[in-house]
Amino acid sequence: MIRFDSDYIEGCIPEILEALQCTNEEQTQGYGIDPHCEHARALIKETIGREDADVHFLVGGTQANITVIDSILKHYQGAVCAESGHINVHETGALEATGHKCLTLPTKDGTITASQVEQLIEDHYNGESVEHTVQPGIVYISFPTESGTLYSKKQLTDLYAVCQKYDIPLFIDGARLGYGLMARTNDVTIQDIANLCDVFYIGGTKVGALFGEAVVITNDKYKKDFRYNIKQRGGMLAKGRMLGIQFEELFTNNRYFTIAKHAIDLSDKLTNALQEKGYAFYFPAMTNQIFPILSNVKMKELAQNFAFESWGKVDDTHTAVRFVISFMTKEEAVDGLISQL
Amino acid sequence: MIRFDSDYIEGCIPEILEALQCTNEEQTQGYGIDPHCEHARALIKETIGREDADVHFLVGGTQANITVIDSILKHYQGAVCAESGHINVHETGALEATGHKCLTLPTKDGTITASQVEQLIEDHYNGESVEHTVQPGIVYISFPTESGTLYSKKQLTDLYAVCQKYDIPLFIDGARLGYGLMARTNDVTIQDIANLCDVFYIGGTKVGALFGEAVVITNDKYKKDFRYNIKQRGGMLAKGRMLGIQFEELFTNNRYFTIAKHAIDLSDKLTNALQEKGYAFYFPAMTNQIFPILSNVKMKELAQNFAFESWGKVDDTHTAVRFVISFMTKEEAVDGLISQL
Amino acid sequence: MIRFDSDYIEGCIPEILEALQCTNEEQTQGYGIDPHCEHARALIKETIGREDADVHFLVGGTQANITVIDSILKHYQGAVCAESGHINVHETGALEATGHKCLTLPTKDGTITASQVEQLIEDHYNGESVEHTVQPGIVYISFPTESGTLYSKKQLTDLYAVCQKYDIPLFIDGARLGYGLMARTNDVTIQDIANLCDVFYIGGTKVGALFGEAVVITNDKYKKDFRYNIKQRGGMLAKGRMLGIQFEELFTNNRYFTIAKHAIDLSDKLTNALQEKGYAFYFPAMTNQIFPILSNVKMKELAQNFAFESWGKVDDTHTAVRFVISFMTKEEAVDGLISQL
Amino acid sequence: MIRFDSDYIEGCIPEILEALQCTNEEQTQGYGIDPHCEHARALIKETIGREDADVHFLVGGTQANITVIDSILKHYQGAVCAESGHINVHETGALEATGHKCLTLPTKDGTITASQVEQLIEDHYNGESVEHTVQPGIVYISFPTESGTLYSKKQLTDLYAVCQKYDIPLFIDGARLGYGLMARTNDVTIQDIANLCDVFYIGGTKVGALFGEAVVITNDKYKKDFRYNIKQRGGMLAKGRMLGIQFEELFTNNRYFTIAKHAIDLSDKLTNALQEKGYAFYFPAMTNQIFPILSNVKMKELAQNFAFESWGKVDDTHTAVRFVISFMTKEEAVDGLISQL
Repeated sequence: MIRFDSDYIEGCIPEILEALQCTNEEQTQGYGIDPHCEHARALIKETIGREDADVHFLVGGTQANITVIDSILKHYQGAVCAESGHINVHETGALEATGHKCLTLPTKDGTITASQVEQLIEDHYNGESVEHTVQPGIVYISFPTESGTLYSKKQLTDLYAVCQKYDIPLFIDGARLGYGLMARTNDVTIQDIANLCDVFYIGGTKVGALFGEAVVITNDKYKKDFRYNIKQRGGMLAKGRMLGIQFEELFTNNRYFTIAKHAIDLSDKLTNALQEKGYAFYFPAMTNQIFPILSNVKMKELAQNFAFESWGKVDDTHTAVRFVISFMTKEEAVDGLISQL
Repeated sequence: MIRFDSDYIEGCIPEILEALQCTNEEQTQGYGIDPHCEHARALIKETIGREDADVHFLVGGTQANITVIDSILKHYQGAVCAESGHINVHETGALEATGHKCLTLPTKDGTITASQVEQLIEDHYNGESVEHTVQPGIVYISFPTESGTLYSKKQLTDLYAVCQKYDIPLFIDGARLGYGLMARTNDVTIQDIANLCDVFYIGGTKVGALFGEAVVITNDKYKKDFRYNIKQRGGMLAKGRMLGIQFEELFTNNRYFTIAKHAIDLSDKLTNALQEKGYAFYFPAMTNQIFPILSNVKMKELAQNFAFESWGKVDDTHTAVRFVISFMTKEEAVDGLISQL
Repeated sequence: MIRFDSDYIEGCIPEILEALQCTNEEQTQGYGIDPHCEHARALIKETIGREDADVHFLVGGTQANITVIDSILKHYQGAVCAESGHINVHETGALEATGHKCLTLPTKDGTITASQVEQLIEDHYNGESVEHTVQPGIVYISFPTESGTLYSKKQLTDLYAVCQKYDIPLFIDGARLGYGLMARTNDVTIQDIANLCDVFYIGGTKVGALFGEAVVITNDKYKKDFRYNIKQRGGMLAKGRMLGIQFEELFTNNRYFTIAKHAIDLSDKLTNALQEKGYAFYFPAMTNQIFPILSNVKMKELAQNFAFESWGKVDDTHTAVRFVISFMTKEEAVDGLISQL
Repeated sequence: MIRFDSDYIEGCIPEILEALQCTNEEQTQGYGIDPHCEHARALIKETIGREDADVHFLVGGTQANITVIDSILKHYQGAVCAESGHINVHETGALEATGHKCLTLPTKDGTITASQVEQLIEDHYNGESVEHTVQPGIVYISFPTESGTLYSKKQLTDLYAVCQKYDIPLFIDGARLGYGLMARTNDVTIQDIANLCDVFYIGGTKVGALFGEAVVITNDKYKKDFRYNIKQRGGMLAKGRMLGIQFEELFTNNRYFTIAKHAIDLSDKLTNALQEKGYAFYFPAMTNQIFPILSNVKMKELAQNFAFESWGKVDDTHTAVRFVISFMTKEEAVDGLISQL
């Protein structure tokens, strides 16, 4: 069985394991205040070109999402997001459990537009009995989206302009940021990301690390007391340096980008093969998540040798599925899959 | 600088690093449903002698505490605990953030008694306007306590009897469980722990692992849907096998107990030295946290070479401090400290 | 200016004011444990034909909704409801503020169907990674709906059958219950309501009282400790007898139904007039909320003499509006409105 | 049976009933935006001498407390209060249910001091791992306290100075404000109250109204969007004018103070009688709550004719009890009680 069901099915880049070995006997303070975390912070700030940013390391994505959003929202505010947004559909209501509603916008490909967001905000403030409805307090998007698609620089710029117009922060979930940045059709740099939002996170779990997400706060307004939030939401790792060490390794020698590029190259190879063989796609194939539409017969056949997720019924005889390529996926594995398409 | 400020300042036992290396390229399902987690669960259930238990792996202690307690309590119930209980004083109100009050009991040494708990429950139900006050819904204790002390088997048995009498579950925070079990004065076995409460957790972070706590649910009533809670509270690690692998190594060849014994032996050595030199103790020295009372002069002197926490002012010239010995503490380090006392 | 913008713009039935006068100097216990509340409970239980029910008096609708739902749901569960459900759109995220997500179903007329609910439940349990999504834990409907429409007895029976099949409680928001029961097209009795759900409430605020909603719990499973929830959610009125006195008056001499009938008769008169004049309706006109579609010109014209809500743009020259008739609306007012249509 | 068990056992001042009668057929907008609420706001602002204040009407005290505190605190902050504070002991954890911890201070008479508060704040910020503990975010006091005692103007001034020094708001729970202001030993005016805190509320429920508390926000920082909070916490009365009408009547012709004075006069009469007869007091008798210590024999004897609360065991043969006098208490009732002491 070769697995294409997600990008968190393997371990990490070998340099991380080596670094854990080398540093194992070091004694450092806990909770993210140690030389490795400090060094990793410096590397990230240099990479994104924002010396003024605050960088915090959290263990996982759901935790990063609720800790950031909850730290920003007032009790009566909600998070504007795509109806397919991770916070809305795949976090067991973790955001609602902190007291906040998802204010969802319809989407076909996982993205939301500047004008959708502006309309939602205008509708809220122009409504009757405005205080009977949840006030939009943050805009949440994923880059790449949960559908594997991307925002162009123009789209992101427009979206952020609306957010700034209404003084509502923009938060970018970058659980798969590396794969988005290295995509062939992408025109957004990591510096753009840092400059076109108020908070974002750089996903480690799905891009090279054992676990860990680096939350980057660029807007001063949201920096104060963030560590209280991390601790309260259960995200403050005692041996915090585990996170620092991992991001040190990822942001040394450009590794974060190199390994993401590897996944993108294989994803493109798979996409090209699917296109050549005439498969249609459920979402446009842009990053490391590929959503072809298979006949149910073919799907069952492939399932004998490959693990992948069924994503949605297309018609009585066809189903959209998801193949995910990771930083550790081997070319032979992709070739094996292609040969059976 | 040699650090005695906590038991999470170093890495992990070498076997864990080796196992991470060996398994790095394996492909497994995420979220704790993989052969390593399954194997670790089996090892733990065998060790505690409870095949019927449910075992879940969470990343950290605060997370484990709120996930367990919140999953059990109704909205109007609170957690009975010592006023020094970790959930009450060192988790940034994480429990309150899930909506629940700590119902605190006074304590001198970190323990609470069966009769204190019974009195609190009786007072609640005998009060006027009972529904104007928070209903006791769970009893939380730590073994060992935050003051490094222990419950005897008799004390634990009595406490659990009260809990059962009133049908209120007992939850044991075992962040430092290993050190408690291996303490010289301890008469409680890990099987006793499993049989004298409804839920407990076996701390990995402070006892040999990089991170990770194994939550063990022995009472059927609290097993249902626990994974939803883990996910909602941000504690479901994507590469869940990282936790399984660590607990596999800890519960192979009795390692969890051997490494804890090492820390206890060094703790006893330190305690004996302190006693011989005539130091008084703030709390009885039982486990791997030692709380001697130092003159402020001596405290400053030691602080030049050793990291440790100041725990509380005793009088104008004396302060209680905390030395913590871990599974990785070297005998030379303890000898060095002793030589300067 | 004559107001048709809601059914809470006037005071109460005169009998309530008289009763408040007569009882003003009585001394009674607080918090809903007094002879008036007891008597009102008895009257309600007799009316609904369920001596086994628990009846609690709360101040308002949002409070009743969150207190009931929150008391039933586990932390990781959500409330299934129409996307137009009051809890989803007009309570400022009050339910989310207690930690729970609304699991919304599309609707055209404000109702949801048994098969929609069954599909949602099936989809949840058949999904991959079931615990990554919010578990359906209660079904919430309004009778009449927020769109002024009704469930037939058949629809309600089917819906409740699905709920019982999956052991998920059905909760009926009866903020305007009286108007629904007295509607011409209605085939549901108040006894049916009591027998076809687990919890419901009888709205007083919009049907004759100054304020107050009577929550009726018919399923034993949800009765325990409900008063703790009322107190915790801020809904336990100190001078609780104010609520008892009001429901005593409403449920004496059939008044609750008589006054609702008055509103329905006037609503029908208005509906007939609108139909005769050729107006289209945004939602089917069934109860005391009428949603005709007006030209924008006519809407502005009417707005000079009448208060009513604009409900939604239909096209560039037409808007749906809402006229609400209450138990206190005068026939002259309706005649005045009709004359200007 | 004559009741002295609380000050919410009767109805309201007759002027309120008359006003409800006179206004019953008026049509007004809902939710507190109507001429009666506006007028009541104007009267209150004039009375307290703060035209710049925002005044909101809520139904009850617990609701007022959580709505105010929750609207001000960030998620990781708690409310500093006396261990006997109403929010800490008599609201079923309503505050914790909004996510916030009570940070309690010991007290003998229900008051807390400026130096206690300063110490708590200093201890927090000087602690190790500051973000592992709940940050003090608001100071909550009651005037009069739950023990019937008062802050002097000097004490209040000192307390507010500490709050301002650390930029932490002071919130005064005035559920029984009138009785405090009219107490013989009191040197604080309602204008002082308004100037020596950031938010307070004027209790109506216990001082003349059927129900209702007027929340007064004097600090601009806490005014924004407060109505969202009221709605979300279930406190926005649909027929909001009921609250406006009541406060109109209370703040016309000085009634609020006159009726409180009546209660205080009777309380003083009772206090003097108790003193003359040699009874000791559990708390100093200052306002309308009197806490004498009775022999258990006497307590049982009195309980045959009078309702009152037992407040705490003093020794095996004596108990502290509470007698409460209200704005409606009759002099004969007090005389009757005195005659049996």
